[in-house]
Amino acid sequence: MTAVTVALDYHHAWTGKDLDLAMSFIAPDIVCDAPAGRIEGAEGYRAFMAPFVQMLVRTDLIAAFGDDEQAVVVYDTETTLVPSGPAAECVTVRDGKIVYSRFIFDRLPFESARQARAATSQGRRTGST
Amino acid sequence: MTAVTVALDYHHAWTGKDLDLAMSFIAPDIVCDAPAGRIEGAEGYRAFMAPFVQMLVRTDLIAAFGDDEQAVVVYDTETTLVPSGPAAECVTVRDGKIVYSRFIFDRLPFESARQARAATSQGRRTGST
Repeated sequence: MTAVTVALDYHHAWTGKDLDLAMSFIAPDIVCDAPAGRIEGAEGYRAFMAPFVQMLVRTDLIAAFGDDEQAVVVYDTETTLVPSGPAAECVTVRDGKIVYSRFIFDRLPFESARQARAATSQGRRTGST
Repeated sequence: MTAVTVALDYHHAWTGKDLDLAMSFIAPDIVCDAPAGRIEGAEGYRAFMAPFVQMLVRTDLIAAFGDDEQAVVVYDTETTLVPSGPAAECVTVRDGKIVYSRFIFDRLPFESARQARAATSQGRRTGST
């Protein structure tokens, strides 16, 4: 299996909301450099992915390329929070598992949407008292 | 020339701060989907890239892959604003020029750094009056 096969199997698993299957492609000692910082270990990685998978509405695969060891998967996501949140994952694969991931996406629309929701919820609470 | 050759020639040009050379790989009618929205045309694209190139300190190429038409280049950047700002560019190439680019990076650290600078500058102005 080439790196891109593993990266795509992983991609299809989590975008299909099967986090158990997705995690079967993740090495126990995965290191992931995500926008908010480094995540180490499969447990932390799962905790990072789970809330995102939960709010996922759809994904569109944009590109997937790689060689024997490294692959890049680029896709767009629609979530309940943000209508378009494109991302790129550049992964290193060893023995059929992702051992390293550089995860790139724009946190700004997610932060803005969270703040807007918090403000609305705050407004509702203030309005009801 | 494959898409990845063009994408890398373009990458080396702008990371070498030669924006004229970089723009020679950009189609006049380029469409670029960047985090802040769609940019259409080479002039707008140059205006989008110029301030970033100006504050660029260094780049590290992480990965570059592609086929005849499409390529993905992943890299990290250090700028005067943010110590690490990784990005992915997924480009479509036609006749040796980039006609479409999906540009992915995290705007949040750039926004935070700009706000912090504005606050410092505001503080300085307030302090001097």
